[in-house]
Amino acid sequence: MYSGKVFVLYKIIDPTDYHVLHPRPVYLIVSKSKTGAVNVMSASWVSPVSDEPFIVAVSIWKGSLTYQNIKETGEFTINIPSEKHLDIVYKAGTISGREVDKISTLGLRLAKSSIIEAPGLEDMLGFLECRVINEIEVGESALFLAEVKTVHVVEEMYTRYGWDLSKAKILLHNGGRGFTTPYKLILARR
Amino acid sequence: MYSGKVFVLYKIIDPTDYHVLHPRPVYLIVSKSKTGAVNVMSASWVSPVSDEPFIVAVSIWKGSLTYQNIKETGEFTINIPSEKHLDIVYKAGTISGREVDKISTLGLRLAKSSIIEAPGLEDMLGFLECRVINEIEVGESALFLAEVKTVHVVEEMYTRYGWDLSKAKILLHNGGRGFTTPYKLILARR
Repeated sequence: MYSGKVFVLYKIIDPTDYHVLHPRPVYLIVSKSKTGAVNVMSASWVSPVSDEPFIVAVSIWKGSLTYQNIKETGEFTINIPSEKHLDIVYKAGTISGREVDKISTLGLRLAKSSIIEAPGLEDMLGFLECRVINEIEVGESALFLAEVKTVHVVEEMYTRYGWDLSKAKILLHNGGRGFTTPYKLILARR
Repeated sequence: MYSGKVFVLYKIIDPTDYHVLHPRPVYLIVSKSKTGAVNVMSASWVSPVSDEPFIVAVSIWKGSLTYQNIKETGEFTINIPSEKHLDIVYKAGTISGREVDKISTLGLRLAKSSIIEAPGLEDMLGFLECRVINEIEVGESALFLAEVKTVHVVEEMYTRYGWDLSKAKILLHNGGRGFTTPYKLILARR
């Protein structure tokens, strides 16, 4: 018996169970086709990958209308929903823009971008205007690397250290219908 | 005046302020050099990018010892800390493995992997054994795409729908010394 030793009994589970890397922030990706039709889908497989320039990686299923739009225009916005958008975000991930106009069905309103053609959404915590610089095939999805051209945020919720977690109820996806939000800020010791 | 319309006043901020995509889960990446030295660093620029096979994207600064180790061996583990590891995770991101043995300095204990040579860490919520399949240069960082070979979790904290958020206090990084954890599970309407 080793005094003070913590034995943690890990169990090996299904090696394709990606939920182990959730909960993670979930976003609404807005794209526009060549003919001007706007679509929206939810996505949480999104990450910064570089800070200067600010580059994001976004994984998009190749069968989706969003994939087709981004291939056509090389542009999209990443919109940051809050807890109040819970049902909209879930629905945006379960219906297809090939069957319905998701923007009007979900009651979303568009916000003009400052640099790109694809719009953002009103009433979010913020949105990022992105332009694709590279595409990598990964299984049935494409990993788009895109440069962030403009960042819009709701001013009173954002500080010089990022989101004010007492105000900005960032939505995180756990799995299926399960979501969560960040609890209060905790500070590591220097 | 449009009845019912929500006017959100977005403000444009620094286009390289990546904190807008935080808080997000933070991990301890463990790697092993060709000569067998084990290193650890914290990273939150990690995302699933494909589910079958389960592929992850991990952004690693090219100046780091972790980058050098992964280049040598093509392997690493992603370890999932909880709220109690707050100070360890912060320190793992602020000191260099070139100057100190971070594993012993941080009081971490290694757990044997089942398939790869790089070990996991004991006493985490779980860990993933990963083998690199591709590397993409992004600015001063490398984006490693790696296949997840094995997933280990603490059994009583994991359900068929992912982490039990009432038990697993997943650590999320907001910025600098600021971290948070998920609050309770909320369910979207069907």
